[in-house]
Amino acid sequence: MSELKNDNIPFAGGEPGSEAYFTGEALVNILVASDETNSYSVGNVTFAAGCRNNWHTHPAGQILLITDGFGYYQERGEKARILSKGDVLSIPSHVEHWHGAADTSSMTHVVITNRSNGEQVSWLEPVSTEDYKAVNEELPINL
Amino acid sequence: MSELKNDNIPFAGGEPGSEAYFTGEALVNILVASDETNSYSVGNVTFAAGCRNNWHTHPAGQILLITDGFGYYQERGEKARILSKGDVLSIPSHVEHWHGAADTSSMTHVVITNRSNGEQVSWLEPVSTEDYKAVNEELPINL
Repeated sequence: MSELKNDNIPFAGGEPGSEAYFTGEALVNILVASDETNSYSVGNVTFAAGCRNNWHTHPAGQILLITDGFGYYQERGEKARILSKGDVLSIPSHVEHWHGAADTSSMTHVVITNRSNGEQVSWLEPVSTEDYKAVNEELPINL
Repeated sequence: MSELKNDNIPFAGGEPGSEAYFTGEALVNILVASDETNSYSVGNVTFAAGCRNNWHTHPAGQILLITDGFGYYQERGEKARILSKGDVLSIPSHVEHWHGAADTSSMTHVVITNRSNGEQVSWLEPVSTEDYKAVNEELPINL
């Protein structure tokens, strides 16, 4: 708190994301481990270009606030959508999905992750190289 | 969603804040009116230089994520603290406080505001010119 910093991305940095849940390089910064009502956590995740998380679900939903860069969000069986700085996305409970950077750009977002019976996420398998490549080819980010 | 924008502050803009709750010019942008569990809202507030909100309390707390600029947070009877880009602050329930910009800088933050029995905030009186000036003199932001 209270130091006069003014770097470009407000909540960047953190610890390397686990290889068990990410393909590629991610940084995870827990900003608030649990709010006062113990309903949710707040964190920041930076995905390097090419990085995405595994398919997963949330038991009580998650909100994404994109603070920098370009990436994707995809629900199982659905067309992906581009995420870019300023986008806000409410991910519903129990929907299998992944998010991450484009292969040409990093992507950073704040995440607000709701808790249900102490659980926040159920991890599934990695997004395959083939599936990730197909999204990048369908929705290319040419910077 | 999905347009390729990359302006400087991720979640700026919104509607003018009410004169009933702000001294000076503020913009309020509701990003998520209510999360899936109906526990909280997410918004963005931009305070022009010199602007602050009234003294107020929250029935279930609020989290501030500072995305740009410099400002202050003060609890009743306590020394103020500087807020700057990258700061994260958890405001406890029922504590009388105000936040806003410095008189030399705008300040923008994302707010996550918890709900209790449908209520999110109890507004009190404006921060007096004298009290606001005293904070700026004690903790000057010289840009």
